[in-house]
Amino acid sequence: MNKGGVFIISGPSGVGKDTVLQLLFEKDPDLLFSISSITRPMREGEKEGEKYHFIPAEEFKAMIEADKLLEYNVYADNYYGTPAEPVNEAVAAGRDIIIEVDVNGAAKIRKRMPEAVSIFIMPPSVAELEHRLVLRGTETPEKIRKRMETALVEIARASEYDYIVINEDVETAAEQVYCVIQSLRFAADRQPNLINEVLTKC
Amino acid sequence: MNKGGVFIISGPSGVGKDTVLQLLFEKDPDLLFSISSITRPMREGEKEGEKYHFIPAEEFKAMIEADKLLEYNVYADNYYGTPAEPVNEAVAAGRDIIIEVDVNGAAKIRKRMPEAVSIFIMPPSVAELEHRLVLRGTETPEKIRKRMETALVEIARASEYDYIVINEDVETAAEQVYCVIQSLRFAADRQPNLINEVLTKC
Repeated sequence: MNKGGVFIISGPSGVGKDTVLQLLFEKDPDLLFSISSITRPMREGEKEGEKYHFIPAEEFKAMIEADKLLEYNVYADNYYGTPAEPVNEAVAAGRDIIIEVDVNGAAKIRKRMPEAVSIFIMPPSVAELEHRLVLRGTETPEKIRKRMETALVEIARASEYDYIVINEDVETAAEQVYCVIQSLRFAADRQPNLINEVLTKC
Repeated sequence: MNKGGVFIISGPSGVGKDTVLQLLFEKDPDLLFSISSITRPMREGEKEGEKYHFIPAEEFKAMIEADKLLEYNVYADNYYGTPAEPVNEAVAAGRDIIIEVDVNGAAKIRKRMPEAVSIFIMPPSVAELEHRLVLRGTETPEKIRKRMETALVEIARASEYDYIVINEDVETAAEQVYCVIQSLRFAADRQPNLINEVLTKC
């Protein structure tokens, strides 16, 4: 059986990653999503096992000790990480899996899994990104300023990614990400037994 | 401006390359096709400049001398080759271009243009390929036997290609080749100025 592919997806806050991913999973229901393990309390509207596994800090630290995370980070005393096991299982089962992670996490995963393919979701312009953050209406000007600072650093590091997809229109962006994922299913190194099969099949 | 991509397409005789390419050019009318220069006489139904440029042997030899061919070969005293200039012009103009060539030609082009992306069109099975050649009804059993011998060698070398697309159904195969070509337009190294543009655009 062919192995599955690991797809790292990053992009600055406000670029519309979540909507792109939502459309992507509608287009390709077989695609898996890597659920992060985190130690912060659950927020309103969140559900265990949907986007995150909410686990105690002790459990998280034990995973770090046992090298069971592809990457992890600490923000405001809370741990966030990508468990390795579900990703490895997906690959072994021939399933493609998406890991949504920031540029630092992406760099760490790339080191452990050089075969992972990374896609950066890019805003059409910095001005447009700021506009989208303001439109959200959920954040203070100070928080928007901080998010924009981080965004500039992230955008500058987009060159570390294999693919860069501009989210001008969310439907087009999802289609383009879908196309990248599809196309890699035809990569020769993702189909190691194909040639023998074709030569021997009756 | 972003550079265009060079796509090498190969596959054994009878696999249905021409039909796949025909559908591909319908899907993507901006795609260019590399017209081979050949010295054999024009056959019925062929037109100058459609799939081939029919040129005198002296002209062909002068192109070899001047290193103006990405690859060339001789069959039955006739020369066949891929002129470099239209390919280089397409790339510089940001246009994607398809070069249809056999596995030997593909290997030569890869050496001169390591950035070229190669796609092998694969039959579902060797038995199916033979079946298609027989169905054509245009070739003697002896010629079919020879074509099958060549096909086995070519299929075994499909691992030299970046992508392998199975032509089970021609519409699906064309869609998959289209997807590979599309996806590479989002490759980070095909968009070298994008990050700066996003950071500076107002």
